[in-house]
Parts: sequence; C-alpha cells; structure tokens
Amino acid sequence: MLIVMKFGGSSVADAECVRHVAEIITDCYEEGNSVVAVVSAQGDTTDDLIAKANEINPKASKREMDMLESAGEQMSAALLAMAIEARRFPVVALLGWQAGFMTDSNYGSARIKNIDTSRVREELGKNKIVIVAGFQGINKYDDITTLGRGGSDTSAVALAASLHADRCRFYKDVDGILTADPRKVPGARKLDEITYDEMLELATLGAQVLNNRAVEMAKKYSVELEIISTITRKPGTIVKEVISMEKMLIRGVTKDTDVASISIIALPDTPGIAFKIFSKLASKNINIDIILQSIGRNSTKDIIFTCKKEYAELAMETLRSSIKELADLKIECDMSGAKVSVVGAGMESHPGAAAMMFEALYEENVNIRMIATSEIKISVLLDAADADKAVSAIHKKFFPEEN
Amino acid sequence: MLIVMKFGGSSVADAECVRHVAEIITDCYEEGNSVVAVVSAQGDTTDDLIAKANEINPKASKREMDMLESAGEQMSAALLAMAIEARRFPVVALLGWQAGFMTDSNYGSARIKNIDTSRVREELGKNKIVIVAGFQGINKYDDITTLGRGGSDTSAVALAASLHADRCRFYKDVDGILTADPRKVPGARKLDEITYDEMLELATLGAQVLNNRAVEMAKKYSVELEIISTITRKPGTIVKEVISMEKMLIRGVTKDTDVASISIIALPDTPGIAFKIFSKLASKNINIDIILQSIGRNSTKDIIFTCKKEYAELAMETLRSSIKELADLKIECDMSGAKVSVVGAGMESHPGAAAMMFEALYEENVNIRMIATSEIKISVLLDAADADKAVSAIHKKFFPEEN
Repeated sequence: MLIVMKFGGSSVADAECVRHVAEIITDCYEEGNSVVAVVSAQGDTTDDLIAKANEINPKASKREMDMLESAGEQMSAALLAMAIEARRFPVVALLGWQAGFMTDSNYGSARIKNIDTSRVREELGKNKIVIVAGFQGINKYDDITTLGRGGSDTSAVALAASLHADRCRFYKDVDGILTADPRKVPGARKLDEITYDEMLELATLGAQVLNNRAVEMAKKYSVELEIISTITRKPGTIVKEVISMEKMLIRGVTKDTDVASISIIALPDTPGIAFKIFSKLASKNINIDIILQSIGRNSTKDIIFTCKKEYAELAMETLRSSIKELADLKIECDMSGAKVSVVGAGMESHPGAAAMMFEALYEENVNIRMIATSEIKISVLLDAADADKAVSAIHKKFFPEEN
Repeated sequence: MLIVMKFGGSSVADAECVRHVAEIITDCYEEGNSVVAVVSAQGDTTDDLIAKANEINPKASKREMDMLESAGEQMSAALLAMAIEARRFPVVALLGWQAGFMTDSNYGSARIKNIDTSRVREELGKNKIVIVAGFQGINKYDDITTLGRGGSDTSAVALAASLHADRCRFYKDVDGILTADPRKVPGARKLDEITYDEMLELATLGAQVLNNRAVEMAKKYSVELEIISTITRKPGTIVKEVISMEKMLIRGVTKDTDVASISIIALPDTPGIAFKIFSKLASKNINIDIILQSIGRNSTKDIIFTCKKEYAELAMETLRSSIKELADLKIECDMSGAKVSVVGAGMESHPGAAAMMFEALYEENVNIRMIATSEIKISVLLDAADADKAVSAIHKKFFPEEN
C-alpha cells in the first residue's frame, strides 16, 4: 500500500517525540508499504517565529512572514529524516517546493493549484521513505507561500490525492473521533467509521480534529482518511464517503460555547431586508452560523442569528451604522448561550432523532432557546451553564448501553 | 554604486541588532546606492540547530544537516527584510536558491559553481533592497547545500563578483584590520589599505576577520573589499590588489599559540624520506605549517615541523606506526611554543625587516627557536610565555611613533 501519514507539531515536539514518530514510520515501511510522511513544525516553533517577527515589525509583509514561518517545517522535516537515518532506513526530506507544491500567491493562506509529484515518485521508486515539510509551497514567482494554520493537514490530503495513495493517516493524541468529549461524558466512545460530511459537521461544531479544508479536499478527491493515536497506534476512525454498516443513529454530541446571539426585534416586514442585513455582515467578513426568523406582532418579524463572540461587536456596529431601516430598532446581543449539537447521517432516515434529543433535555429540565436543523445535524442554543449537563443527557439517550 | 554588504551572526543576534543593521542598509540606499545585503544566521542559531540534530542522530547525513542548517539564514534574512519594511523601504528577501547560487553536491562544504543573478538584478531593477540568505545554495538535484563555516563571506564575495559590484563591504565589530591585537599592544593601529595576499597571511596567522576562501575569491575576481565597523560606521580597511601609497613596511604583527612542534632527530640521510613523512601526514589530513630541515651529525639530519595542537597526537602516531625508517628514532613533541609573525608586502623590497624583528627580540632577551620566511611574512617560533612581550616589542620597532 502507498500510505501518506501526517504528524502534527505536538507529535514532533522534542527529540524523544521525533524518535517515536520515526519508529511509527519505519514500522509501517517494514510491513512492506511505501510511506510518505507530512510533518508540521515542532511544538511552539511557529508561534515563536511569529513572536520574533512581531518584535521587529508587527506589520511585516505576508511574503516575508511565509519565508520565516516555512523554516519551522524545514527544521522538523530534516530532524525527522535524521531520526529515520538513525534507524538505518533509506529516507529523504523534501521541502514544499521540492515536493512539487505549486500554490497561488495568497501569502499566509495560499491555495494549492497542483502538485508535481515527480520528485516524490522518483524517491519512492528508490524505496526511500519520503518526509515532506507540510504547510508550504511556492508560487509562480518561485517565492515561498504557506497554506495558513492547519495547512499541513491540507498538504497531506492533497499529496495523498495526487499520489492516488491508498490511505491518508493522521496521527493524533486521541484514539480517533469520539461521540462526545471524554473529559465531560464518561460514556464517550470511539467511532470506527464516519462520513466526510459528518466529519465536517463535527469539526465546525468544535470537535476540531482535522482542518476542514483538508476534509473537504478529501471528500472531493475521495481520499480515505484515518485518525489514529500516536500513542496506542490501535485502529482509529476511518473517514470515507459511504459507510458499510449503518446501525448507529448519530455520530456524536458536541458543544460550542463561543456563541454570540444577536436579535433584531420588531423588524418591519419589507422585502429584501434580510438580504440587506446578511450581505452587509458578509462584506465585513463576519461568519454567521444559525439564522432564525420568526413572525413578530403587527406585521413585524424578529431575526436572530449567531456568530463567534469575537465578531459580535463588529456585527452590532455594522447593523446600527449601515442599515437605515434598523436605526430605531431594538438590537440585542447575548453572550450567555452555548450550542449543543448532535451529528449523524443516520438521522436523515430517523425522524425520531430530534424528539429523542428534546426529550433528553426536557428530562434534565434544560430550556431550549433556539433550534436549527440540517439533514445530518440538529443544534440547539441553550444556557451555557446547562451545556455540559445537556451533552451528557443527550449522549446517554443515544448511547444508553455505555452508561 | 552597487554595494554588496555582509552581516555576520553577531550583527543580527537579536531584534535590536536587526533594527540597527536595517538602518545601516537603508542609510546606504538613501545615499543613492543599489544595495544587496548577505546575512548569516542569528547569533548561536547554527550551533543550536547542530545540537538538536546531534541529540537525534550524531551521524546524520550531510544532506539533511544542510536542509536543517540553512533554515538559520532563512529566518535571519526574513527578519532583516521585515525590519527594513518597518522603515518603509522596498525590500525582498531571497534564499540561496532564489538568488541563483548553484553549487556542487559536497553537502556541508559545497563550492559555488555559478550564480544566476537574474532574480537579484530584476529586484534591483525595481529599486528594491535585496536581502540574501548567505551560506547556502542548491545543487543540480534541487537539493539545498551549505558552503561550510564562514560560507556567508564567500556568498557575499561571489555575489559581488557576479554582479560586478563596486564594493563588497563586511560589517564587523572591529574598526578594520589592525596592525596587532589592541588588547595586547596599546599602539595597535587601523590599516587604511591592505592587499589580498597580506590579508590571507594575516588570516592564517590568527587575526581571523574574513574567511580565507572569501579573500581568495575576491583576489581572483578583483572584488574590492572593505572591513568596516557596525558600531562606528567610520571608513574601515580596504582590501585590494595594488595599494597606492606604499610607505608602510609591514601590515601587522600577530601571534599564534596553537602550535605543536614535532622533531625527528638523527634521521638517516636517505633520498625520499621527507616525501614519505609528509605524504603520510597529508593522507591523514594533518595540515603542516612550518617545516625546517637541518644537517645533523654523522650523515643524519633533523626534521622539525609545526601543526595545530589538535593534530599532534595523530601526527606522532602516524610517524611511529607507518614509516619503518623512523621506528627506532627519537621523535619529540613540544607544545610550549608560540609563533609570532610580521606580515607585509613592503618587506619584499626591504631586506632589513627580518633584522629589525630579530633586533627587537634580542633587546627583550627573547630566545628564537625556529625561523621561517616567505616573500611577505617572517615567522619565529619562541616560548609561548614570551609571545606577548615579543609582539609588543616588534610592533614598537616597526610603528615607533605610536608608542
């Protein structure tokens, strides 16, 4: 098999970690596989480099920031190759440009345009283990670019897609994708399989294990992913398009406390007002999550939406200053809520899922402020103080045998 | 003027140093010059990276060591560019391969084969200040190579030669090349000019200011060098082929205490024995400095040579074990000596220089063990305990007005 592996910064934080990762790689190679390993910068390297830059110039150009930051993966890739050499296996480390990562010129958050895999294939053809510095590429000017935070995940998936790898394996400090946060919910269990869409919903809900861009790319190119523990190395969670056995109703229960809900009360019921509101917010790059519209009184309506707390102030200001229809209206912002969600493709064909969720909340006497549903997700907004209790109750309802 | 500047690791050790160097560069640019600045890794970065590698694999391949170490100059070049951006000047940082440094494949001590200066010229054409990461290049396989310790000096001279720069300026923490060590000799003075050959002799004698390879390359391509102080920024020492005013007899007085002298006593006077001895030593990569041969007694001769102390043991062992003619002879090693030398092209036409030197030593009652002369240098081996006294006395003899 051709296996692309990805190791994050904490997996290669110090010499001992690097040696452990080298062992994982050479064990896989000894089993007869071709192995390409994409690696992030060690531990806090990237943050340290950014701090150094800020001390010299807090407004440094993104081009020079990319040249600086890409040194982090350069160092970790070389060190990992050295650890593999110490185990007496043939290995070569390649930088983003050497591994053929061509990107656009959006320094700091470049998109991969294509990967010329000839060098990687050539080295694999010589039976070498190939280490690739993640997070980086070059643009048409031969200048170094970086893919933005979490970009090494994208590097790994893109390389796996270009090489038609059999598997793209992400080594993490967790056993796989869990049905809930195990620190909060004692019955949390590991999922053996999950679809790309479920993975995306879980990621946006706060159970961030893989970068979303990477999951979207894996879905587009049908790259089979595996989330696996660096420590136990036991079978983890496979992420793929269609799951063979569909007996589980939901995949997981998550909470997100970074929620501001903004209410516009008694809005006149004129056409186009919703468009005006949300296009203005979009023009300020404010990401909106849930939107609810309710019939109000006397030909008016209420609009409520949620966003991350950091955007709340800018959103309030935008609404007040740039939309004349809202000038005299009551606009409220509330930071006391939390969003709890259940995710699972199985819900589509099981209309009872929402009822089960609400029942669990009712039994715990948790008040629901808002409800939003999609085909594979049900989210409720509730008091942040109730969030942990709610997650446990819902999890117990869907996975009763574990409690 | 087109000026290539070179800044060493201590000149860019921290944020404050980097800002100071940025000011030197932009001041030169504001005077109407085109400026290319070659920079080394910050302070102890290279040593730190080597220590990290040694922790993981003390026998790491040189290819991966080069990938690791080259990250040092990558970071300092980017940071220096950011400091220049903060001063609101147009700037771009280039890595070795981006600046066109093509080398052979001797990882760790690669030789520059040629420099494709098109990118550097293009950026200069856009009126940009160009920062170049020193010490590094790429080979024909597109793999990163480093030029070895002191390689950034060579990068700067090679780039100056390829660009036909008007001047290659080395910023150091000294005012220029001095006639003696100012901590030992109060009358030590700065030289305004010096020839390449004198510079080379001074460097090998221990007054190491510039890497010898860099000086040799400057001589070959007639690149005019200037050694100048990062702190005072006053006119320093110009290094060039022919010096206009030739009034000074010698350029400087130096001492070297890292001297082991090895004597082979009463060697049979058979042809080829000297060849055998020094070819065996050369095959062990032992660099020999002075060699003296004297007629001994009864058709025998004595051979005495000096080398660095670290090679002494290996040299003794090589002589004893691999040359059968020496098996029964007395071979002695002495570590108590020091070499004091005067250097100056003016000596060629002033045969009195040696006499002046010996007179100074006689007046101070310093015993001379060995004498060796070249066209522009006279060296004597004497007791290490006498070395500082000898240097002061000789300096006083040649530069009387300063004392």
